[in-house]
Amino acid sequence: MRPLITLTTDFGQGSPYVAQIKGAILSGCREVDLVDVTHAVGPQNVREAAVVLADATPRFPAGTIHLAVVDPGVGTQRRLVYAEIGQQRYLAPDNGLLTLLAHKSPPTRIVALANRRYWAAEPSSTFHGRDILAPVAAHLARGVDPADLGPPLETLVLLNIPQPMRSAGSVAGEVLYVDSFGNLITNIGRDDLELLGDLARLSIECAGRSLPGLVPTYASAGDGQLVALVDSQSRLEIALVGGHAAGELGAGVGTAVRVLGNL
Amino acid sequence: MRPLITLTTDFGQGSPYVAQIKGAILSGCREVDLVDVTHAVGPQNVREAAVVLADATPRFPAGTIHLAVVDPGVGTQRRLVYAEIGQQRYLAPDNGLLTLLAHKSPPTRIVALANRRYWAAEPSSTFHGRDILAPVAAHLARGVDPADLGPPLETLVLLNIPQPMRSAGSVAGEVLYVDSFGNLITNIGRDDLELLGDLARLSIECAGRSLPGLVPTYASAGDGQLVALVDSQSRLEIALVGGHAAGELGAGVGTAVRVLGNL
Amino acid sequence: MRPLITLTTDFGQGSPYVAQIKGAILSGCREVDLVDVTHAVGPQNVREAAVVLADATPRFPAGTIHLAVVDPGVGTQRRLVYAEIGQQRYLAPDNGLLTLLAHKSPPTRIVALANRRYWAAEPSSTFHGRDILAPVAAHLARGVDPADLGPPLETLVLLNIPQPMRSAGSVAGEVLYVDSFGNLITNIGRDDLELLGDLARLSIECAGRSLPGLVPTYASAGDGQLVALVDSQSRLEIALVGGHAAGELGAGVGTAVRVLGNL
Repeated sequence: MRPLITLTTDFGQGSPYVAQIKGAILSGCREVDLVDVTHAVGPQNVREAAVVLADATPRFPAGTIHLAVVDPGVGTQRRLVYAEIGQQRYLAPDNGLLTLLAHKSPPTRIVALANRRYWAAEPSSTFHGRDILAPVAAHLARGVDPADLGPPLETLVLLNIPQPMRSAGSVAGEVLYVDSFGNLITNIGRDDLELLGDLARLSIECAGRSLPGLVPTYASAGDGQLVALVDSQSRLEIALVGGHAAGELGAGVGTAVRVLGNL
Repeated sequence: MRPLITLTTDFGQGSPYVAQIKGAILSGCREVDLVDVTHAVGPQNVREAAVVLADATPRFPAGTIHLAVVDPGVGTQRRLVYAEIGQQRYLAPDNGLLTLLAHKSPPTRIVALANRRYWAAEPSSTFHGRDILAPVAAHLARGVDPADLGPPLETLVLLNIPQPMRSAGSVAGEVLYVDSFGNLITNIGRDDLELLGDLARLSIECAGRSLPGLVPTYASAGDGQLVALVDSQSRLEIALVGGHAAGELGAGVGTAVRVLGNL
Repeated sequence: MRPLITLTTDFGQGSPYVAQIKGAILSGCREVDLVDVTHAVGPQNVREAAVVLADATPRFPAGTIHLAVVDPGVGTQRRLVYAEIGQQRYLAPDNGLLTLLAHKSPPTRIVALANRRYWAAEPSSTFHGRDILAPVAAHLARGVDPADLGPPLETLVLLNIPQPMRSAGSVAGEVLYVDSFGNLITNIGRDDLELLGDLARLSIECAGRSLPGLVPTYASAGDGQLVALVDSQSRLEIALVGGHAAGELGAGVGTAVRVLGNL
């Protein structure tokens, strides 16, 4: 079976730099399957990429190699790493991209990509995705032992991702991500909500608006209605039926969200 | 040979939700080839997706599985279906997405996706593309008999797509679709036009402008000229050479188009 | 091993026309791997596509077939060609798309696609990418001898791409390309710069701003600083750290750039 490699970058959809990475991988190992996770991460937005990677990559078959390049520190002393988390394998700059994955499941192996034998011959100082990560991915796909890539590491660099604050009868969180429909995805999880009583009778506050209870699905309310629901990642989400909640509320990443219980 | 699966959604190009669907398919059946048709369908625009599916999917090899997710009714009682149309196989919500395909060629088999054995273990109520359609696609790719997916159905839900109106010496239609170049694709076909006489001598009216006859190709007129031609799908198309006809004319989906004959 | 085919067009990311090309290729040869280079080339921007093709395609494995469709002259007498350049194979309209590739390495074989036996049965006059190039790509992938595609040609149509002007102590060039981060990629190469002395002590002028010397990487300066560096293609690039240089400078393709030496 062919090894599977996914790609996540902030290069922009349609960036020919992504194609250069694919060319470098395929030149190193012709027999792989490539899948794009996304190249639409906001420029240098490591936190957004951390959310995307945590949501999407664990859904791939065990052993998949996930190459992630959101790398504002390219060419500096920041490390590049190989990490095994859950059933998946990652290649990325060590700048926090794997934070949410590591929160879910501690890495079982981390290796610094220090062995230049597996890099391109003369790597540029501005495009390590193509000149280091891609050749290393190809070598892994051909069966190179990760231990040969460089010295083991104890820990990854982690971002300080805000956690929701639980208090008696309420939970306070914030918008973590805005999806392409304009839905507001928060850092409040189903487990936080279930401590507050009947989901249908909670009160949700965001950007000066108050929503009376969660609905089971988008279609539970009419067009133009603002609704709160538990999304497909088990997170509290605020949506405008048939519309764009972020635009309607003037809300974005970091906007405060508060949920009041009914116990 | 590997089964081939295509994907058509309104999630937006670069949406990581698409990657979640791909991860779910590949986790169910590692040996498939995946091809994106498009993820740039307008949000919840079932009619636009119906046009895209009718134009693109019949060009794939016989037996290809086409997964389509434009699903404003997700989580409601709307059905999900498997359908065989022409040489192709489809998995989609039963909301009209397959209308134009069914107009061309009646479905030879329709099955309601009711057998939960082929779904994800605990499907979310907001993302059936990932939790129902993707696992079913993987099972089909592994050779599951479509008859096992659920009970047979007699008919699909169909949209009311406007048909052109032929009258003596003219035909009245409308813009069905605006492509990425801004070209206006109409619901008037080559067969409608041929009833009206010499194509080069027809008169085309749209958005207050009158065009004198069809040209054979875009390059038949100079930059900035508005032209009408029969496009690569045998439909009447209005284009601005080197420009964006929809912007220039203030025209879009539903704009009336009339063609006068010369007999 | 499966043949590898890449696609480069100006159809727009997510264009279903790209999917029609893929369907046509796969219908002609089911066992191929498809990779998108980009579909985000500016509409009918042959020069931009020429840069993209020259940067990306040589990074693919030897023998890869690269299909390029930026074709303002579709349906006119402009030729379609097969060309072998370096280790790569190309299928494209003969309108200058291969100019920069041919500058690097003269084509070793050029064939006019004249043999209709390898085209779709009734090619449209507006979509030769789908009806001629895609079927020809499939035939090549199945092993058809390029000599059978049509008569050999001596030369390709070439664009007049501006070359930098070297003079004593300076070099004058221009912006060739703006990437998705807003970085200005110029036509001035590392070899031009090295004639001028110590790279860190050069002076770079662009859009009324003067930059004191090249930095080794983006992270060498703070956010909001304008920097010049040699990019991953060995070209002089001007970037705004953490920002969009093209927007900041009001610069774009064709903006003059001048480098003064220090010898």
